[in-house]
Amino acid sequence: MQGNMLIAQSGGPTAAINASLAGAVRRAMDMEEIGEIYGARNGVTGLLREDLIPLREKLVSEADFARLARTPAMALGSCRLRLSETPDETYEKIREILRRHGIRYFFYTGGNDSMDTVQKLAEYLRAQGEDIRVVGIPKTIDNDLGGTDHTPGFGSAAKYIATTVAEIFADCEIYLPASMTVVEIMGRNAGWLTASAALARSHGAPAPHMICMPEVPFDMEKFLARAGELSREYAHLVIAVSEGVRRSDGSYIASDDNRDPFGHQQLAGVGHRLGRVLKDRFGCKVRSIELNVLQRAAGHLQSERDVEEARQVGAKAVELAVAGETGVMAAIRRISSRPYQVAYDSVEIAQVANIERTVPVEWIDRERMDIRPPLWEYLEPLIQSPSQQEPGIPKHFTF
Amino acid sequence: MQGNMLIAQSGGPTAAINASLAGAVRRAMDMEEIGEIYGARNGVTGLLREDLIPLREKLVSEADFARLARTPAMALGSCRLRLSETPDETYEKIREILRRHGIRYFFYTGGNDSMDTVQKLAEYLRAQGEDIRVVGIPKTIDNDLGGTDHTPGFGSAAKYIATTVAEIFADCEIYLPASMTVVEIMGRNAGWLTASAALARSHGAPAPHMICMPEVPFDMEKFLARAGELSREYAHLVIAVSEGVRRSDGSYIASDDNRDPFGHQQLAGVGHRLGRVLKDRFGCKVRSIELNVLQRAAGHLQSERDVEEARQVGAKAVELAVAGETGVMAAIRRISSRPYQVAYDSVEIAQVANIERTVPVEWIDRERMDIRPPLWEYLEPLIQSPSQQEPGIPKHFTF
Repeated sequence: MQGNMLIAQSGGPTAAINASLAGAVRRAMDMEEIGEIYGARNGVTGLLREDLIPLREKLVSEADFARLARTPAMALGSCRLRLSETPDETYEKIREILRRHGIRYFFYTGGNDSMDTVQKLAEYLRAQGEDIRVVGIPKTIDNDLGGTDHTPGFGSAAKYIATTVAEIFADCEIYLPASMTVVEIMGRNAGWLTASAALARSHGAPAPHMICMPEVPFDMEKFLARAGELSREYAHLVIAVSEGVRRSDGSYIASDDNRDPFGHQQLAGVGHRLGRVLKDRFGCKVRSIELNVLQRAAGHLQSERDVEEARQVGAKAVELAVAGETGVMAAIRRISSRPYQVAYDSVEIAQVANIERTVPVEWIDRERMDIRPPLWEYLEPLIQSPSQQEPGIPKHFTF
Repeated sequence: MQGNMLIAQSGGPTAAINASLAGAVRRAMDMEEIGEIYGARNGVTGLLREDLIPLREKLVSEADFARLARTPAMALGSCRLRLSETPDETYEKIREILRRHGIRYFFYTGGNDSMDTVQKLAEYLRAQGEDIRVVGIPKTIDNDLGGTDHTPGFGSAAKYIATTVAEIFADCEIYLPASMTVVEIMGRNAGWLTASAALARSHGAPAPHMICMPEVPFDMEKFLARAGELSREYAHLVIAVSEGVRRSDGSYIASDDNRDPFGHQQLAGVGHRLGRVLKDRFGCKVRSIELNVLQRAAGHLQSERDVEEARQVGAKAVELAVAGETGVMAAIRRISSRPYQVAYDSVEIAQVANIERTVPVEWIDRERMDIRPPLWEYLEPLIQSPSQQEPGIPKHFTF
């Protein structure tokens, strides 16, 4: 007997989340167990309003799937709704709506908060005796989800950051007078994205010269000392900094002076703050660059590997649900880095939801404010485009 | 009799200036009139230090030329040196160095300031009876040079801006609550780059909803009224703003509050300022994004047409010099926009140097704060990749 399928997206955008949507729907179309396929607009919010799109009608040709997979952000829209800790009328309303539409397979794509929703709904529906399987599809540029080697969306953001940092360095080094450039990168608690700036060195460039991640307490004097030391060796420094760097007491660097003379909240963050401190100390030309949302929506610079994995993870989720699993998340298991090999897997949602996975501190070189080789080995395959034999980032010419 | 050639780069980086270098050197290698080919590091500054690179040794294979053409910023490095108004010892030193190295062909690649150098040196050397031909190669993302339909480097920056604005809009529209996003774009006096944000609409997207260029006096109340009007029609507004917008009295919007409580110069500009004003007025979610140097160094997102034209302009400059011309700039003449056709030309340097070409005000819709159709027609061909049959910017999937 057939059951219907519903898929939704949640949390922040990535360049690959639509590839998971494409992968899941494409796989579902091949399965006789699955009848109608709906997409809910704006996650659980849209589900509660029964704002459903019939996806079999909207995704017809292989070209549709290909274009969807290449589209950044979220084609179905997102929400930031968190279900209450104990089941309330919202849970019951969701159950009613799922029953009314004959949904047996429900897929929720997102990060930590979304997996919390998967966990709560799977438990509730099971307790109510419903055969409605709830499976999570991981997604986040931050790469801070446990239970999976890495998250779809991260590789593309990492590729964007590495490419951009290499271009920023090319831009810096054209002039003779010394300069320092601070690049502020997303990742409030996890330094994965900031670390990926290191891949700008893929073809031998020295930038970024320093990498400051939130896993390690930030010490302003050590930071300035290291910048001073490096500035004796290099005319132009590029410094990658996580938006979330903080002191050992937990206070954020970004929040030091976030109000202007009129008491308005300043939009500027840690990059501008550190830029000002560097300018005061060294007096050279200083620039601050905030990569902002560009790093999570850069569909034009997807990592081909990331997109392919995102598709596969979406397809895997469908297979898991059809096989009867619920309260699980589809995951990527790394078999080896060189050569790069992965398998697709399922993980209990309780091992994932609400747990933030940060960079192991033994992968961070505190003294040099840099990453260590195992982190490079972890990151490097994720930005590659295997089919095109393309390097992860463009190789620049130097005289 | 053979003469030697010297080429240098100056001003700010672009994604296509190295393509002009590649085009000029590649053409020179085919000409028997040209002996040695040198590149000066860091423009006239490097020339004065005789910091010369033998380019025949460094650019050997076609792969070298291809990679050079794909490298952003400036492979030879830049400078910001302006020659004095009347010839002084620097002129004479340059003359001596050029003579000592047997230079008969000197190429200077850059914008307004660099063309000023071409004009002064060409006149001086001619007055001294030297047969040293000085020819300018245009380059600037700002597109503010006269005498040429557009400047190499502009098309790639325009493509980056349009692609990025489309991605920013994709990022904005995933949530239900309303938002406004200000994107700050380079171009202190000329709005060409800000106008090119309009190309984000290539595939039907409504963003950017407003375009504010420095050619038109900025009126805060009109700006807020227009934003209010549009916000009744669209949940998510993206507003493209030139860093150089100013009031009718000439005062910059960016300079209103550029000092923090400690008297430090704020790095934030007009984007942050307008973001704060919008937040105060409308209370919705507001973001400010500064494209910063990313827009001038994005080698990974070159316009193929721009790169090809940059090569051709470089080659044309060499042909002009060998044909005996001096005190001229190689230029692009547009024959038609649909189909797009250009020819390569020479223009007297006096018609170019120190003249800033801004956007014709009749191409700007003041009331709607937008561009008019002739400006679209002008801009649209410049971001295309003809050989790949690629559209100017990626087409996103929408349900």
